[in-house]
Amino acid sequence: MSETDMKLVVVGAAGRMGQTLIRIVHATAGVRLHAAIERSNSPFIGRDAGELAGLGPIGIPVTDKPLEAFVEAEGVLDFTAPAATVEFAGLAAQARIVHVIGTTGCSADDEAKIRAAARHARVVKSGNMSLGVNLLGVLTETAARALSPADWDIEILEMHHKHKVDAPSGTALLLGEAAAKGRRIGLAEHAVKVRDGHTGPRPQGTIGFATLRGGSVVGEHSVILAGEGETVTLSHSATDRSIFARGAVAAALWGRSQKPGFYSMLDVLGLN
Amino acid sequence: MSETDMKLVVVGAAGRMGQTLIRIVHATAGVRLHAAIERSNSPFIGRDAGELAGLGPIGIPVTDKPLEAFVEAEGVLDFTAPAATVEFAGLAAQARIVHVIGTTGCSADDEAKIRAAARHARVVKSGNMSLGVNLLGVLTETAARALSPADWDIEILEMHHKHKVDAPSGTALLLGEAAAKGRRIGLAEHAVKVRDGHTGPRPQGTIGFATLRGGSVVGEHSVILAGEGETVTLSHSATDRSIFARGAVAAALWGRSQKPGFYSMLDVLGLN
Amino acid sequence: MSETDMKLVVVGAAGRMGQTLIRIVHATAGVRLHAAIERSNSPFIGRDAGELAGLGPIGIPVTDKPLEAFVEAEGVLDFTAPAATVEFAGLAAQARIVHVIGTTGCSADDEAKIRAAARHARVVKSGNMSLGVNLLGVLTETAARALSPADWDIEILEMHHKHKVDAPSGTALLLGEAAAKGRRIGLAEHAVKVRDGHTGPRPQGTIGFATLRGGSVVGEHSVILAGEGETVTLSHSATDRSIFARGAVAAALWGRSQKPGFYSMLDVLGLN
Amino acid sequence: MSETDMKLVVVGAAGRMGQTLIRIVHATAGVRLHAAIERSNSPFIGRDAGELAGLGPIGIPVTDKPLEAFVEAEGVLDFTAPAATVEFAGLAAQARIVHVIGTTGCSADDEAKIRAAARHARVVKSGNMSLGVNLLGVLTETAARALSPADWDIEILEMHHKHKVDAPSGTALLLGEAAAKGRRIGLAEHAVKVRDGHTGPRPQGTIGFATLRGGSVVGEHSVILAGEGETVTLSHSATDRSIFARGAVAAALWGRSQKPGFYSMLDVLGLN
Repeated sequence: MSETDMKLVVVGAAGRMGQTLIRIVHATAGVRLHAAIERSNSPFIGRDAGELAGLGPIGIPVTDKPLEAFVEAEGVLDFTAPAATVEFAGLAAQARIVHVIGTTGCSADDEAKIRAAARHARVVKSGNMSLGVNLLGVLTETAARALSPADWDIEILEMHHKHKVDAPSGTALLLGEAAAKGRRIGLAEHAVKVRDGHTGPRPQGTIGFATLRGGSVVGEHSVILAGEGETVTLSHSATDRSIFARGAVAAALWGRSQKPGFYSMLDVLGLN
Repeated sequence: MSETDMKLVVVGAAGRMGQTLIRIVHATAGVRLHAAIERSNSPFIGRDAGELAGLGPIGIPVTDKPLEAFVEAEGVLDFTAPAATVEFAGLAAQARIVHVIGTTGCSADDEAKIRAAARHARVVKSGNMSLGVNLLGVLTETAARALSPADWDIEILEMHHKHKVDAPSGTALLLGEAAAKGRRIGLAEHAVKVRDGHTGPRPQGTIGFATLRGGSVVGEHSVILAGEGETVTLSHSATDRSIFARGAVAAALWGRSQKPGFYSMLDVLGLN
Repeated sequence: MSETDMKLVVVGAAGRMGQTLIRIVHATAGVRLHAAIERSNSPFIGRDAGELAGLGPIGIPVTDKPLEAFVEAEGVLDFTAPAATVEFAGLAAQARIVHVIGTTGCSADDEAKIRAAARHARVVKSGNMSLGVNLLGVLTETAARALSPADWDIEILEMHHKHKVDAPSGTALLLGEAAAKGRRIGLAEHAVKVRDGHTGPRPQGTIGFATLRGGSVVGEHSVILAGEGETVTLSHSATDRSIFARGAVAAALWGRSQKPGFYSMLDVLGLN
Repeated sequence: MSETDMKLVVVGAAGRMGQTLIRIVHATAGVRLHAAIERSNSPFIGRDAGELAGLGPIGIPVTDKPLEAFVEAEGVLDFTAPAATVEFAGLAAQARIVHVIGTTGCSADDEAKIRAAARHARVVKSGNMSLGVNLLGVLTETAARALSPADWDIEILEMHHKHKVDAPSGTALLLGEAAAKGRRIGLAEHAVKVRDGHTGPRPQGTIGFATLRGGSVVGEHSVILAGEGETVTLSHSATDRSIFARGAVAAALWGRSQKPGFYSMLDVLGLN
């Protein structure tokens, strides 16, 4: 730990993602945990944040005072829920710090409030904080734009563990959207999600999905562009759920030197 | 070409597979084309077999006299139709030569006649003459037997060109049957071929199928056995339709030194 | 064939690549073979270009009159040699047509002459005419720029057939150059091509190469970006040597509607 | 936990592997931790085994009394060191329980003593306790035996994290040995571990190795058998170091119903 380490607050500190964030902040050079926040009625208030996260005691008790924490910190990592996130965005704006938001399910109204806060805070918001997945989305869009649908077929393959209850995965659909955007078409009208029995030849311009389930696979995604005599495949493999926490820390470090504004992981990757 | 080359007859010589067989026999060390046979009413009778196959003239005219050809030859390569194959089997038995049969769709009655012929001929018969696919089937059965269904999930993935009109492929189903046999279960009751929307967790003991279509892919198959923290994947990739002809030639060479009998590609691979 | 088909000339028509170009032009909608050119002393002058290419006669004799052919055509496909290419560039400029150049080994002086011709011709020149490989190069550069070398390691894997006599492949090195460019480093100082025995930990910032050889594999290339808990893999698989001819035809069709100038396959892909 | 759970002792309980074993035993249905053993001079004697392993207290203190533990238990999981393992083998023989040995580096003399103990104990010993890797070894040997070296080339590819200091990995060499055994050749004379620059064509019958390093990859291994027009690939991917502990528990459960004897993971897999 050094004087120049970026001081970060973790909100939702007692949740599964909060604990992961605490561990990753603890393990990453260039950042350090400044405070850990939970709701006022949480049974974990006062507990040591390191103990909660399985690190052993680190001398930082969980508190329910976000503003006090924010004003002394440089960034906040937030994978909580829409209502809490909107509130934290306001506080982050007051404190003029970086607000990294991995929260999903925000309404248009929530979004508007967060964007208002981004006049003073540096907000980085994404539905998927993995650097690799965000990069894959950009590369997929580029590839889909470059290769003509008359000659190249796009397929999206994903594999996840046996406990997953829906298909295709959210990330597979996100990659399908990126491919559709590259081709300037709508995904809904072009997606093919089932092939069984007599299918007929592949309809030109469609985007196919295939789903594998098994074992403890954290997440594998491939975008396959198949042409005559050649195939381009763009893949992402996650072996560890901590990649979302790592991406959030990378976003915070990137945001430290930016002007106030509303950013995405593509900005963090330098791809916007 | 040497004196010890195995002399082979190609039947159905003017068809697409017949032409491929002629080219592969021509290109393979240790064998040579002895005769090329077509039906009596074929317009190709009398044409040079090499010219038909795109090799240029090789001095072997197509004839409609199989028995004359068989008695001077050591083997016959046959990817024709059930009725013709049954007849060729009888002639191969008279000539006491190797009869390699890639013909599909034989009835139980056809099968019985072919087995009768195998008292004198050395018959090698398989629905898929690729060495690699046959090997993959055996390895799949072994793996499925060794790994407990309580801890390991089996998935079968295939990709073929955009013109293919059915799914899953015959080879994918063959691999599924091999996996089911290894587990001593029926495939029909355990196969899952569609996953879309809310699927619920993966039912234990099922065998999943996923299908990709695109470009000019000749045939890719993977059997995935996914456990906790580890995955075993067994794959076959075909890049050339000539692999079935190559497998047939390999079967003929293997059969040359066998006793009369009814064999499969597993015998050729030494896996029976 | 229709009136609006683009009329193309194939130079070096009797060579292996020339024959492939003739076959692909013949098979591709939107283009047609206008003429086939060889050197004046070629024994193939006067022979039917279709017969040379294994298509059967198509009524187009091979000639040694490029300018006559060019002035009536719209494009020329050229995988010959530097001296011939420089001459064809001058003629293409006179005819104001598209000149697609896959010729390799041009000197700086040759290059200057070709660029001069590009004031009047529309020249598309690339050392590798495959759309997929060119796309992969661009995606590799983008990915290497976006992902920090402190956290992500770049590896390049290739597989080719057993007859290939050098390693790594030219395309693997081209992908390595793209990765190095994305990172703004030199490849030569950062490439690691051998790992055997006690290697020590992987030096940060290096670009590793690994080579596989076997069978009849036409060409497989993967760029692997491996981070903590996640991996991004960008791959190209060629199953058919005709992809270079297909890319050349795609380049000609693209060039038809461009202004005179010097272009690369990145322009054809819309990625410049 | 039920009455029929197999009672297991973990020796070397305070080490990294010992802790993993404790966690996996704790999490696996059908087994339960009976005792945790360390050396007499270990500072961990008396500490709760669950706390050591990060599970929280489970009421089982670490002791230095293996025999007392063994006589009340049904199996012992042992990834310690040769001298300790030889001693534990003698005690397991006295207690007539299952002794699962993942210890490496045993001398011929150690091995002889362990085999002597196996007259009374049921010993399962392997240098790699992963079910998947052991299966892959068997499948590799089968495939290498079935496919002729004249027509099929064998390549072994591995990828590990950036911290690994040697190449190829021990598992890659083990797979190479399996392939060589299938072909009835020696690996040392046929291994090719470096390809750089002008290599010449691939020598027939060799077994090639290629090594990738990067990120946090736990272990990926592929055995590629490449023929003319087709390729068979057998792969194993580990995403979690706990697979060795899981394999040890599976071995213990398997051993419970066996006669005394010396077994390997191939017996556990039913492949011997």
